Amino acid sequence: MSPEPRLLEVRKNVLKQNDVIARALRDRFRAQGTYVISLVSSPGAGKTTFLEKTLTLLRPHYRVAALVGDLATENDAMRLARSEVPVRQITTGTLCHLEASMVERALEGWNLGLFELLFIENVGNLVCPASYDLGEDLRLVLLSVTEGEDKPLKYPTIFNSADAAVITKIDLAAAVEFDELTTNANIQAVRPGMRVFKVSAKTNEGMDGFLQFLAQTLTRSSQKIPV
Amino acid sequence: MSPEPRLLEVRKNVLKQNDVIARALRDRFRAQGTYVISLVSSPGAGKTTFLEKTLTLLRPHYRVAALVGDLATENDAMRLARSEVPVRQITTGTLCHLEASMVERALEGWNLGLFELLFIENVGNLVCPASYDLGEDLRLVLLSVTEGEDKPLKYPTIFNSADAAVITKIDLAAAVEFDELTTNANIQAVRPGMRVFKVSAKTNEGMDGFLQFLAQTLTRSSQKIPV
Repeated sequence: MSPEPRLLEVRKNVLKQNDVIARALRDRFRAQGTYVISLVSSPGAGKTTFLEKTLTLLRPHYRVAALVGDLATENDAMRLARSEVPVRQITTGTLCHLEASMVERALEGWNLGLFELLFIENVGNLVCPASYDLGEDLRLVLLSVTEGEDKPLKYPTIFNSADAAVITKIDLAAAVEFDELTTNANIQAVRPGMRVFKVSAKTNEGMDGFLQFLAQTLTRSSQKIPV
Repeated sequence: MSPEPRLLEVRKNVLKQNDVIARALRDRFRAQGTYVISLVSSPGAGKTTFLEKTLTLLRPHYRVAALVGDLATENDAMRLARSEVPVRQITTGTLCHLEASMVERALEGWNLGLFELLFIENVGNLVCPASYDLGEDLRLVLLSVTEGEDKPLKYPTIFNSADAAVITKIDLAAAVEFDELTTNANIQAVRPGMRVFKVSAKTNEGMDGFLQFLAQTLTRSSQKIPV
């Protein structure tokens, strides 16, 4: 007998429980006026560098905080702390994704009402995080120019679960002969109409456009929230 | 009540069953004189490009075949077929790793005795594949220079499960300011004494050294096999 059906059943229960906690988190975020953005990507796509730059640029204008997930080490929290916004690390041990309960625990003792924006950086993984709702308002999937154009086709679920795509490290586009047309076509094939940003956290190229998008999204979102 | 203990228990059973199949596979590979090498890495680290180059260079000297795992698409099998060695694709659906049973199924109808070397390219993932034995003799973990020096510290389990590391895309080392000393130190911290190769499948740099290592490993291995 194959053990898969039983594993699937248990996984479904875990996912269902995750959805319940994520829904409660989302209600809490809304009630406190905190807009939540999560980031997913493969390891090394530049999530932390992009997030550090984003936090640094947002800090003068918004009250921002961040949670960052990793299997091991507090390296990313230390890197993000350089942006001088409040940061907390979540270490997942051997787990390849964040779950809503981990976000809930990591927020203990934080007065969410203080933050207009909360970023959640997921574990570097293009598979596991797809199925776990973290109560976020916006999910960004990052893809670096060095990874190859086929990633949206190979990991359709995570691209489908995200609201916008960010192509990172575009300063390296020429060196790696990045094929932008094919990449865009592959993203649109998996998630038609998906908004795509091209950025370099190193040269700042494209960061303005991304921050404008965030500002607009925030304005629209706050108009919907009953105060 | 948390569902985690039950999930863990089911996972343990799945892993135990995988180990049984992997052991049978290993015995079969040994009996037929096939040396098996698996490749793990994050998505976009360059597994397929590295493997295509390796297959092309090995083909004139060895009887080689390859299996390649992905969630979706047959793209990698098509790319690897350009090397003119026999290639089969395993698509895993939503599963973030290969399992021994998938390798077993993919080999059906192949006369293993025809191949001295079989490569198995795992799904791009630095977490899930770590725990699944595929019956391989040698596991290579690949890490591209664009991914950042901290990956061994963040994903210690997969580096620990591998026998040798291959640093890929070294033609980009200068462009991304790759810190070789730190990367090596981090690999050695997680897996002391690990053999590390630096290669570029684009410029061929370092491929000779890697192929020499393979040839030596094969010779040592075949001397151990009772014919």
